[in-house]
Amino acid sequence: MDNEWFSQWEHVFKLDPDRALSDEQLELICMSGTDAIIVGGSSGVTYENTVDLLSRIRRYSVDCVLEVSTMDGAVPGFDGYFVPFVLNTRRADYLMLNQLEGLQTYGHFVPWQMTAASGYIVLNEESTAAQVSGADASLSTQEVLPYVWMADRLLRLPLLYIEYSGTFGDMNLLRRIASEVEQARLFYGGGIDGAERASEAAQYAHTVVVGNIVYSNIEAALTTVQAVKSIKSAQLL
Amino acid sequence: MDNEWFSQWEHVFKLDPDRALSDEQLELICMSGTDAIIVGGSSGVTYENTVDLLSRIRRYSVDCVLEVSTMDGAVPGFDGYFVPFVLNTRRADYLMLNQLEGLQTYGHFVPWQMTAASGYIVLNEESTAAQVSGADASLSTQEVLPYVWMADRLLRLPLLYIEYSGTFGDMNLLRRIASEVEQARLFYGGGIDGAERASEAAQYAHTVVVGNIVYSNIEAALTTVQAVKSIKSAQLL
Repeated sequence: MDNEWFSQWEHVFKLDPDRALSDEQLELICMSGTDAIIVGGSSGVTYENTVDLLSRIRRYSVDCVLEVSTMDGAVPGFDGYFVPFVLNTRRADYLMLNQLEGLQTYGHFVPWQMTAASGYIVLNEESTAAQVSGADASLSTQEVLPYVWMADRLLRLPLLYIEYSGTFGDMNLLRRIASEVEQARLFYGGGIDGAERASEAAQYAHTVVVGNIVYSNIEAALTTVQAVKSIKSAQLL
Repeated sequence: MDNEWFSQWEHVFKLDPDRALSDEQLELICMSGTDAIIVGGSSGVTYENTVDLLSRIRRYSVDCVLEVSTMDGAVPGFDGYFVPFVLNTRRADYLMLNQLEGLQTYGHFVPWQMTAASGYIVLNEESTAAQVSGADASLSTQEVLPYVWMADRLLRLPLLYIEYSGTFGDMNLLRRIASEVEQARLFYGGGIDGAERASEAAQYAHTVVVGNIVYSNIEAALTTVQAVKSIKSAQLL
């Protein structure tokens, strides 16, 4: 879908409200040329630390959106909201019930025009995301395709997020997924530790998400912006 | 959404492969001026009785689509397919797992352009549909709205089906739901036993589904077509 508010994003940084970042580091991230910052984490997210991170990012003009993974962190004032649906789990709470509970509590206040359901396929068994959501993360290429069809073709979700959270994914699998996607915007996240892997993921994903490396090697993190932008420019030729 | 293959449907008959209908009765239904026939049932649906009903309907030019409520009844050759997602259940199988299983088995053969996810809110506790799917069918107006938002605004499903299966629903509730729907096509089904109730439901729902009465009073069933069409014509004025 080309008419979504995130349809032009090629590179985003994902910042965790539960992890520390100095003002200098945050400035480098916000001024890096990235298309947006996603605020979200798999554990330790609270209203307080989410508000705090939002207010610090708000010193800059970069778009800032919230991945609403816990009701505790549902903070107003973001430029947009992603509501994750984990597709490869058998747990009803992560399939739909937590999201429903969110609508029961906050439904009247949701800025629908800036809110998007995002279908997650979690593919790193060791990740907190997989463990928290009970995801069946050990999927072969053939096994992953039904989830892709579910998100992209049957539910026609505007966003399909391939989440390798913490580890670099199988790029052959990502390429295969990309070849099956007809309308969703394909996000890739996980293990992007510098320009090389960012370039690789950008070949297949519409949008590359860079997270952990921000906290361990900010210089390497910053190089991913141009790496992704170069691949995307080249794809236009 | 105005660009779906079912966007113009105002009246449809729903026929159950597990129930008997004479050739004469079927001809009256198919030639009634209804916009389409949905084949589907909550129990007793098999490949054989679904194929049989499809082949009999195929003698006529009316559109015929399948509601894929069981894998056993997944028959090729229909003009379209609805894949139901029951929204007001806590059971993972009816939320998403059965549908996923269907994609795992038949995903390569799905005619995506003619296949639509339909969000069901089942509101008759006594119905087979509610009992089979474990639906929490006793919802107040305030309680039903989050399900409407889930289907229409968050998941942006193309079809929201208010299913009172076997009993005539609360038209005040239907009106409230209709006022909240922004993009989905709103189907209403349940307890339409003649022209009067068909007219009532047509005031709020985009599409009125007439089922059981076909089997007990075909003359009454046939009057619902014109009743719905009259309301819809009047709404255009």
